[in-house]
Amino acid sequence: MTHGKIMITFLPARAKIGVIPGTTLLEAAKQAGVRINADCGGTGSCGKCRAKIIDGPVGDATETEKIHLTTEENKQGLCLMCQRRPEQDITVEVVTASAGTGDSGTEKATIISLDLELKPAVIKRFHILEPPTVQNNTADLDRLMQRLPDAADADVRLVGGVPDLFRDAQYRVTSVVYNNLLIAFEKGNTTAENYGIAVDIGTTSVAGYLANLAEGKIVAAASTANRQGMHGADVISRVTYTMEHDGGLSEMQKLAAQTIDEVVGRLLYKSGVARDNVYSMTLIGNTVMSHLLLGVSPVGVASAPFVPAFARSINGTVEALGLKSLPGYTRFTLLPNIAGYVGSDTVGVILATKLDKLPGNWLAVDVGTNGEIVLAAGGRLLTCSTAAGPAFEGARISQGMRAETGAIEEVNINDDVYCKVVGDAEPAGICGSGLVDAVSELVRLEVLEHNGRIKKPEDCPDNLPVKVKERIRPAGRGYKFVLAAGAREVAITQKDISELQLAKGAIRAGIQVLLDEAKIDPVDLEGILLAGAFGSNLRPASIQQIGMFPGIELSRIKAVGNAAGTGAVMALLSRDQLELAKNLPGRVEHIELSVHQGFQQLFIDSLGF
Amino acid sequence: MTHGKIMITFLPARAKIGVIPGTTLLEAAKQAGVRINADCGGTGSCGKCRAKIIDGPVGDATETEKIHLTTEENKQGLCLMCQRRPEQDITVEVVTASAGTGDSGTEKATIISLDLELKPAVIKRFHILEPPTVQNNTADLDRLMQRLPDAADADVRLVGGVPDLFRDAQYRVTSVVYNNLLIAFEKGNTTAENYGIAVDIGTTSVAGYLANLAEGKIVAAASTANRQGMHGADVISRVTYTMEHDGGLSEMQKLAAQTIDEVVGRLLYKSGVARDNVYSMTLIGNTVMSHLLLGVSPVGVASAPFVPAFARSINGTVEALGLKSLPGYTRFTLLPNIAGYVGSDTVGVILATKLDKLPGNWLAVDVGTNGEIVLAAGGRLLTCSTAAGPAFEGARISQGMRAETGAIEEVNINDDVYCKVVGDAEPAGICGSGLVDAVSELVRLEVLEHNGRIKKPEDCPDNLPVKVKERIRPAGRGYKFVLAAGAREVAITQKDISELQLAKGAIRAGIQVLLDEAKIDPVDLEGILLAGAFGSNLRPASIQQIGMFPGIELSRIKAVGNAAGTGAVMALLSRDQLELAKNLPGRVEHIELSVHQGFQQLFIDSLGF
Repeated sequence: MTHGKIMITFLPARAKIGVIPGTTLLEAAKQAGVRINADCGGTGSCGKCRAKIIDGPVGDATETEKIHLTTEENKQGLCLMCQRRPEQDITVEVVTASAGTGDSGTEKATIISLDLELKPAVIKRFHILEPPTVQNNTADLDRLMQRLPDAADADVRLVGGVPDLFRDAQYRVTSVVYNNLLIAFEKGNTTAENYGIAVDIGTTSVAGYLANLAEGKIVAAASTANRQGMHGADVISRVTYTMEHDGGLSEMQKLAAQTIDEVVGRLLYKSGVARDNVYSMTLIGNTVMSHLLLGVSPVGVASAPFVPAFARSINGTVEALGLKSLPGYTRFTLLPNIAGYVGSDTVGVILATKLDKLPGNWLAVDVGTNGEIVLAAGGRLLTCSTAAGPAFEGARISQGMRAETGAIEEVNINDDVYCKVVGDAEPAGICGSGLVDAVSELVRLEVLEHNGRIKKPEDCPDNLPVKVKERIRPAGRGYKFVLAAGAREVAITQKDISELQLAKGAIRAGIQVLLDEAKIDPVDLEGILLAGAFGSNLRPASIQQIGMFPGIELSRIKAVGNAAGTGAVMALLSRDQLELAKNLPGRVEHIELSVHQGFQQLFIDSLGF
Repeated sequence: MTHGKIMITFLPARAKIGVIPGTTLLEAAKQAGVRINADCGGTGSCGKCRAKIIDGPVGDATETEKIHLTTEENKQGLCLMCQRRPEQDITVEVVTASAGTGDSGTEKATIISLDLELKPAVIKRFHILEPPTVQNNTADLDRLMQRLPDAADADVRLVGGVPDLFRDAQYRVTSVVYNNLLIAFEKGNTTAENYGIAVDIGTTSVAGYLANLAEGKIVAAASTANRQGMHGADVISRVTYTMEHDGGLSEMQKLAAQTIDEVVGRLLYKSGVARDNVYSMTLIGNTVMSHLLLGVSPVGVASAPFVPAFARSINGTVEALGLKSLPGYTRFTLLPNIAGYVGSDTVGVILATKLDKLPGNWLAVDVGTNGEIVLAAGGRLLTCSTAAGPAFEGARISQGMRAETGAIEEVNINDDVYCKVVGDAEPAGICGSGLVDAVSELVRLEVLEHNGRIKKPEDCPDNLPVKVKERIRPAGRGYKFVLAAGAREVAITQKDISELQLAKGAIRAGIQVLLDEAKIDPVDLEGILLAGAFGSNLRPASIQQIGMFPGIELSRIKAVGNAAGTGAVMALLSRDQLELAKNLPGRVEHIELSVHQGFQQLFIDSLGF
């Protein structure tokens, strides 16, 4: 103990931090830079921030811990970091699934094919200027600007560099014009080095794409967990955090910037591109993510009348976002939001799928922490958003985790249960696609009742293989279904199934609201486009089996990858696409489900299997 | 002495500073924030940084001090601050004329009448917005932007303030649009509070004008000494300072910003206007001042081929200039320069005098630390710049000072010498107008030879009054002429007369070059407009007597006040005038005198009286 503080050590990272006695381990981990998957934001409800006490008093389990940990686990020294407030030095080993630090396994940063005319906002040109003489002593900058009919002004910050650079370069320089502004100039011919980055700020994951703007090609993709995750898995807990903590808004802003910095850092590392050659960035995200990125209070979004502070596209220099990974002259454009819960990510989906131009009626469903739905029908674009919930991303699921090494991502049941695990590792938990698969199989095999309840083994169909039946085991007042019984048992609880029901029911009901509004029958749909890194990993058959989508031919359900991210790339590569994006919110009819008359009943109707 | 430092105390300000032993008093004064008039930049050549040692060892005079101080003065404890490097604690009384801290006496911030259509770049509008409902839940910012057809974007930095302000204001807000950008919004109706500031950055003085942009009225004017003056009186010594001192360029930039901050502070204090209601600023200055303001090396301006880093107009936020007196959202526009030594101040002169539109042939001469000349003839605008020299502003004149209390500003000679002194005080020195007057009288009375030499008393005309003749006294190898023989003798030396000859000769020759280029005879001139705060204080008759201007009727010489500053105000009040200013450099033909074939001969021809 030094200066009244106690020392907390986190293994395996060996991160140390001195904190005031009584600080929670979770808060200490945050201060130490150890990222913890605390989906509930530290309220004790998710039970995921597990650690093992290695050196220091184990103490008694709190009431909250008793809910999430067995007596045996407590004896072994396991605790929840949000519950423990050590009064003396302690060393703990973090045993929770981390919030992820590497590129996430199967959550690929998928880009669907781009179809556009290359027309980036950044234009580089090489100029061989005549060196000045007494007869021709035009000022250096003016000498260059005369060659740039499209640049009305020069950024004041670059003027200081003019004299040295022009002389050093012997008047052979490359200009960088962003829209009508000269934002940089470089020595010699650097026209080939023209890059931009598109960023998709998901509530759970942030994905980035580095594009060569001269060639219109994506040269690297990377993603990482949104660091805001330490304060809750869904947008509501993030909003709540900003309301309940002094400086919480500013902290959220910094976490967003740090996450983007991390993604940018990886993109640069992977591609070998120099940071100085990244001139523009497009960003998309849901409305709350957009607010937090700009440090704008999202409180208005969260409660009636659900008024965002802004919806229109915002642009500026990355300095204004506090990004440290890119030079100050890099310009960002945050795409416009449509409404409180239909963000610029949905604008991106429409851009990428060209939903506004496709013949016939189409549905696009972006399944992420929220579920955004767009229906294109008869020239109209209708949209709504459901709190699909973090179920699909593993949060609130008892053994849920992101699709990282150890996650069960595919489940097939015939004579027994067969799981595909990310990285072919020992099963450590289950990710969203695994959960949907498992529940879909349990529905098919009638292990679940219509209302989702797990049947007693004796009530299951007679033809249920015995090995499968043995996996139905008592848990609390009901049953759980064990998927893996290895070193660590991985099971689905009744509560997990309920979470999935709530999520899929909300999406099904949201779809129905839009279909009703457009007076369209499911059979009139040309197809359903399944967007989102996560959505693309779902098996259409499983989705149909659990009843998330209206009954249409399986072949008409098409995964389109990270369509939101693809839209951000398109806006990066083409000013026309950006213009289109800016105009989309004015064309889209948004239906606010929380005040919709029929939604609640449709939701209840959609919960069953 | 503390921590190896010695304590220097400056009276009468009682400013104290701890410095390393061996630091010059001048450097210590700079660190202590005591502003000293050191026209030569501390090289020992001007002899003006006088102080009296009050407590501490007097020591022997240095060789440099012996040139500027009498043995008697040294005995009294007088020294030059640039020459003394104390090794122990010392208290000195600054006795030099200060660089000025108040509004400078007769150097009024004169604005000639404005003739323009009011059309400022800043538009404020009051909006009563409908508070949002669930049925109408357009985002706050978008709600406002829909009302602003002229605003394409909102500054990213103001988005954070949206939620609180809109609610607090109950959706009654005032928007502030600068060009096409929303730069601020305010609670309630603040449309009457719309201000801008025009700044004239002179080498010696910086003048500012605070204008009400809603009414097109100037509500306050203020001026102060340019703090860069501590590093030399003319632009060349300023340029040299940046070359010879590490960090000198950045220091010069800061001094420019600090001077402007001081002027702004006074304008706000005088007018009672709130800083938050100042939204735009126009700036003019000579090319070197423009470079230093932006922190751009002016070295290219100073030597052949005389290439500035930039000439075009530059704009940005005042943050980019490091101004602390105004909010970060205030926008500045630095008007364009014409050439290396013809700056945006000359653009201001042309705007204010409408020289480009006046019928007939006109000359405008801006007499300041430099002398800029513009000739409008036959639809052409010709310009050149002469190193008029700081003679007119008192620098390099043995007892020269700014037109502050104690400065002889007017001289009449009949039976004896009669001086008008600023503030009716005891004469302490002589300012530019006094020098021109005195020399003009000495020329008229034939006390000076044609080449400027002071005649021996016995060689003067017989009718020269005896009291006047007695004022011719030996000095060095020649003579001086005593203007005042009170507590402190004020005299004009042979060197002072030479300085004036060089200055007026350069202007006369510059005018001739332009007249020759346009094939105009002086009699074809409609008039000569005498611009500059200093120029306006000169008596046309005296100017004519010393031969600074070609022979034209006295009545055709018109003082037009601070025309450069007036031009800055016009660009502040009208976007049309700003556009005109931006286009002027392209219309003006600049003649570089330093490489002109005939200039040197004309210059030599113009030195005599």
